[in-house]
Amino acid sequence: MKCCIIAIGAEVVSGDILNTNGVTIANYLKPYGIKTVMQLTVDDCKKDIVKAIKRGLKKADLVITTGGLGPTYDDITKKAVAKALDRELIRDEYSVEMLNLYFRRAQKPMPQSNLSQCYFPKGSQIVQNPNGTAPACITGTKEGTVMMLPGPPIEVEALLRTEEITSYFDSLKQGEIVETTLKFFGIGESHLEEVLSDYMKKEKNLILAPYAKTGEVQLKITAKGDTREEAITRTNTLKEKLYELVGEYIYTEGDRKLEEVLLDSLKQNGQTLATAESCTGGMIGQMITAIPGSSDSYFGGAITYSNELKQKICNVSSETLSEYGAVSKGTACEMAEGIRLFTGADIGVSVTGIAGPGGGTEEKPVGLVYVGISTCDKTDAFRFHFVGNRDKIRQLSAKNALHLALCASKSLGEIKK
Amino acid sequence: MKCCIIAIGAEVVSGDILNTNGVTIANYLKPYGIKTVMQLTVDDCKKDIVKAIKRGLKKADLVITTGGLGPTYDDITKKAVAKALDRELIRDEYSVEMLNLYFRRAQKPMPQSNLSQCYFPKGSQIVQNPNGTAPACITGTKEGTVMMLPGPPIEVEALLRTEEITSYFDSLKQGEIVETTLKFFGIGESHLEEVLSDYMKKEKNLILAPYAKTGEVQLKITAKGDTREEAITRTNTLKEKLYELVGEYIYTEGDRKLEEVLLDSLKQNGQTLATAESCTGGMIGQMITAIPGSSDSYFGGAITYSNELKQKICNVSSETLSEYGAVSKGTACEMAEGIRLFTGADIGVSVTGIAGPGGGTEEKPVGLVYVGISTCDKTDAFRFHFVGNRDKIRQLSAKNALHLALCASKSLGEIKK
Repeated sequence: MKCCIIAIGAEVVSGDILNTNGVTIANYLKPYGIKTVMQLTVDDCKKDIVKAIKRGLKKADLVITTGGLGPTYDDITKKAVAKALDRELIRDEYSVEMLNLYFRRAQKPMPQSNLSQCYFPKGSQIVQNPNGTAPACITGTKEGTVMMLPGPPIEVEALLRTEEITSYFDSLKQGEIVETTLKFFGIGESHLEEVLSDYMKKEKNLILAPYAKTGEVQLKITAKGDTREEAITRTNTLKEKLYELVGEYIYTEGDRKLEEVLLDSLKQNGQTLATAESCTGGMIGQMITAIPGSSDSYFGGAITYSNELKQKICNVSSETLSEYGAVSKGTACEMAEGIRLFTGADIGVSVTGIAGPGGGTEEKPVGLVYVGISTCDKTDAFRFHFVGNRDKIRQLSAKNALHLALCASKSLGEIKK
Repeated sequence: MKCCIIAIGAEVVSGDILNTNGVTIANYLKPYGIKTVMQLTVDDCKKDIVKAIKRGLKKADLVITTGGLGPTYDDITKKAVAKALDRELIRDEYSVEMLNLYFRRAQKPMPQSNLSQCYFPKGSQIVQNPNGTAPACITGTKEGTVMMLPGPPIEVEALLRTEEITSYFDSLKQGEIVETTLKFFGIGESHLEEVLSDYMKKEKNLILAPYAKTGEVQLKITAKGDTREEAITRTNTLKEKLYELVGEYIYTEGDRKLEEVLLDSLKQNGQTLATAESCTGGMIGQMITAIPGSSDSYFGGAITYSNELKQKICNVSSETLSEYGAVSKGTACEMAEGIRLFTGADIGVSVTGIAGPGGGTEEKPVGLVYVGISTCDKTDAFRFHFVGNRDKIRQLSAKNALHLALCASKSLGEIKK
């Protein structure tokens, strides 16, 4: 099955914003065996949108549009689709109700213009938007199907996870496809590829796609089979081999993020965690607390951006700060131990480093980062020298801190047994 | 003048890589008065590329392609363009020489396949590639101009800076364009449009484009004029009107983020800031510390995810917690004041709320968030009821906290004067 993705909006055509939806959607479709064969980006111009829809339906079985579902005058996707498909626009009363509810909850008056968001091509399946006021819709025709999604990525992602949309795609599946993701930490993408080179040769029913992501590598395995069992067997045989070759680097199977795996391990072992962050400035806490239920195992911690706070909360000694500096193994150890004792958590994690662009010296260059880990068993700190800009250095620091906390959680769990 | 940008390559269509060239090129063209009106993404398929080129020339005066100039069998952009324009491909001897030189310098043998990179549609202007082996070329025809650039962003960027390409675009310049962005907080996109409806009508020389982004709205003003002065005058006249109508919501002009504007205000007023975050779990700290130099004004703070830490660092009273709960105006106020006093900062900001998906009650539903602000002048907290998933609620909380901190910084600055 083929798909054409159309991004609609002056801001995308003109280059004001980067169209990430195309990548999100194309990757989302892959496990369903749907191949994206064309991507178009068109202005908020009805004539152009109509043309693009028609072109898309000629080339593909499914056309997905993003953008142009907002309440303002330049949001004309639905009008254009209705014209391209020669359908009437019909007001959906349930959507009107939901919209009223939305504004009542937000305690704001509803502008009349928002009502335009409640009109859909006749015969559409309407999907309410968990993160915004514009519902999505799926309109089937003889020529193919048109799915209209809003523009903001946060809304697109939430909609793709809805029951309605996942079950729509489930209904399109041909043959069986099983997708498995293995996540690696501590091994580079090219090293992994070298190790796997024999298995990387493109086989029709088994595709290995490694993909590097700040500090970690994901390996996506797509197995096809006439039956689900066949695809699963294919996957398992490969997986066994992978655990044999590079098992030590695999930290999880599936879609879970590093922070989720960490929280699971903490929970499983009945442990609690606290953080003391300097150069990451709250990024680790933010990543952990992005996971619902994190409060069960995460106490919180300190953003000790200033030296005063490092001393006041984490009890870092003036001697360590003056002798070795804020970015040192000693400070990282004292921060980790300090936050553990201050909060009473089982594991204390700390980060101190030079994220740049300024602040580097020959001895302590930009990218030098220490991650400290403290448990009742021992306190230690690890030295890293990351390459990249401020954002990349901070992200690598946070990821490595999470990974070291995961290792600490596991080994502390072992000791307790 | 109008441009159509065509990204060529299976890896872009399939979503394996994000097409950043479209944004780079569209933005590069703006100062030359060239408007990108369409962006296409097509597979490495000759027929599709030919069609896309023809479509592009119908719609625009200039077609720019990226990708498909490599030496491998699926790199067929030039063949497709030659076919679309009905031109022969001619070997360029200077390019052959440059290619030989390139490989001699890299001390590698030249694969014969690379010679295909030296053929261009007859009559093309060839531009050598500073960062790669594939030269770019500009081919003029009756229907318009086709410019072919390679795919790797690092090569595209280098080519756009070459003498040949900049002077080609200089020769196209008609009139002057001035772009200005105003950023709003506290007003919705549709409300802003209602207020601006008279000015939103598409005028040829003045275009207003509002664009909503989690909690804020950006308004881009594009003014044209025969001279730069004319375009600036047009912009200023409109801006005056906007400040009159909705000035209270404008928090900055230009590209700076909310957290940058806050840091500037703190610096300008000689103030310092500290944060106490519950449901945002470090997000505010992370946003602030993403800006280089933030340590000048930001001390850090606490991630008081547990009630114990709220008490231990921020001195929130047990009475407040037991009587009103962790998500309450009282707790938000005490957190903000507590972190201010603990750190000695001028401004303390706190966030406590229910980000969901669990934890909501009828009285305190998911999305209920309090932002506390404390200065030596006063301590107060603001109640919000955000709609969306956990991520959206946390982002809206963080953004509103930053905005309230900005307001506090400004009014404290006024008082001190």
